[in-house]
Amino acid sequence: MPTAATPDEVDYVSGRTRLFGIVGDPIVQVRSPEMFTAAFRRRGMEAVLVPLHVLPADFDACLDGIMRLRNLDGLIFTIPYKLRATKLASTIGPQGQLVGAVNALTRDGNGWKAEMFDGLGCVEALRKRGIALQGRRLMLLGAGGAGSAIAVALAHERPAFMRLHDVDRSRADALAGKVRAVSPQTNVEVAEPAIDDIDVLLNATPTGMLDDARLPFAVSALPQRLIVFDAIVKPERTPLIALAESCGCTTVYGREMMRGQIERMVQFFTHA
Amino acid sequence: MPTAATPDEVDYVSGRTRLFGIVGDPIVQVRSPEMFTAAFRRRGMEAVLVPLHVLPADFDACLDGIMRLRNLDGLIFTIPYKLRATKLASTIGPQGQLVGAVNALTRDGNGWKAEMFDGLGCVEALRKRGIALQGRRLMLLGAGGAGSAIAVALAHERPAFMRLHDVDRSRADALAGKVRAVSPQTNVEVAEPAIDDIDVLLNATPTGMLDDARLPFAVSALPQRLIVFDAIVKPERTPLIALAESCGCTTVYGREMMRGQIERMVQFFTHA
Repeated sequence: MPTAATPDEVDYVSGRTRLFGIVGDPIVQVRSPEMFTAAFRRRGMEAVLVPLHVLPADFDACLDGIMRLRNLDGLIFTIPYKLRATKLASTIGPQGQLVGAVNALTRDGNGWKAEMFDGLGCVEALRKRGIALQGRRLMLLGAGGAGSAIAVALAHERPAFMRLHDVDRSRADALAGKVRAVSPQTNVEVAEPAIDDIDVLLNATPTGMLDDARLPFAVSALPQRLIVFDAIVKPERTPLIALAESCGCTTVYGREMMRGQIERMVQFFTHA
Repeated sequence: MPTAATPDEVDYVSGRTRLFGIVGDPIVQVRSPEMFTAAFRRRGMEAVLVPLHVLPADFDACLDGIMRLRNLDGLIFTIPYKLRATKLASTIGPQGQLVGAVNALTRDGNGWKAEMFDGLGCVEALRKRGIALQGRRLMLLGAGGAGSAIAVALAHERPAFMRLHDVDRSRADALAGKVRAVSPQTNVEVAEPAIDDIDVLLNATPTGMLDDARLPFAVSALPQRLIVFDAIVKPERTPLIALAESCGCTTVYGREMMRGQIERMVQFFTHA
């Protein structure tokens, strides 16, 4: 661990610091830097996780360069790179293979292994709140990397019904096939958003992130019985969460999903 | 500035953090991360300077990737990259041009500008100790990036004599030409190390860094009147400094050189 800091030095970074990064565009909304760095520190690791703002046109060259850093041990991927990151890995873990997207990459011998933890984090967050999913009726908005991971993890919980929606219908169709493969007894529908018959509403689109004041679908009120989850971490209280709370719904925040996956991801990064 | 930290978060890195890095091989010995990050923090900047361990074979691809990061604002270069870094810059400042090497790079519009601060830092460190160089007799070991910067900055102080030595004689010869151009009245000699006629001995070779127990030249005792400077920052007390102190010499540490250039470099990085 760092020696005592003198006034002109900080004690949280040095030449021995091992690096981790979160890759995304935009990047200012991410919460991984403060949360993972704290998790590393609790374990006595000299490590920091920094934001890496990569534009889509730079992704290939940027990642090629970054992954050559000898003191870089792992990367997290967020919007819009969870699908694209799969091609950086020499091996992909079971969740990542099922989903076709990954959110974590770490060294594995001379190569890199990847895995997807978003879905497990979401299910863990709901479980911690005592929310069981078996036999429930769910609607998931967004079939990108995070949405796919969440859908597949939810499928393992054997819900009775899942309605999937994405602005790109073909992505939702492909995801429906993955959900059916995991849970044949779940009735899966690709359709426009509708909540009258739904118990749990989950948002995995970026709509509502940062200064985006929009709701992820057109709605003016939500039934009080609805459980509403939003994968967005900034703002914590998204427009959807705010509407849900004003309607008396139970709400589950994106940060709870992050908490639900941090320990698993730190184990993945440290090969524990 | 970061909001108050909750127990599962640190307060020194977030999605808004601006990145700086120090590029070198090896990297564990550098002191810039803790010192520059503290300097940024004192100015209220949300920024961190991290170590970037780049192998020589990876330098081009690695730097190409890193410099594409949209939240990267500047880089420092240490051994062995101070000469090689010049080709990354679209413009080079006056010290860098004189020396032919740079240790700092920052964004400048759509390009990057570089400058060399090592020499100024060394002269500033000696000045703070009240050590005047005008009319003195100096010997400098090492004519690489740091050594060249130090020699050129020393030349501006008008010493009477400078003996230069490098394992690569042609590098020392080239540096002698630069010193003569800056200070025609200084008698410059490229020769094997000898200290009998010397007032100030300066080491700018990497010999003595980290676990290297060697002295930068063959010597068993130093005259007490000698002022001894070592550019190495880790260990702080290098074998040369230890010998000098055991002989009662005045010693000036590498960290003092770093302190002497931090404010100038932070101004360079922040375009202040």
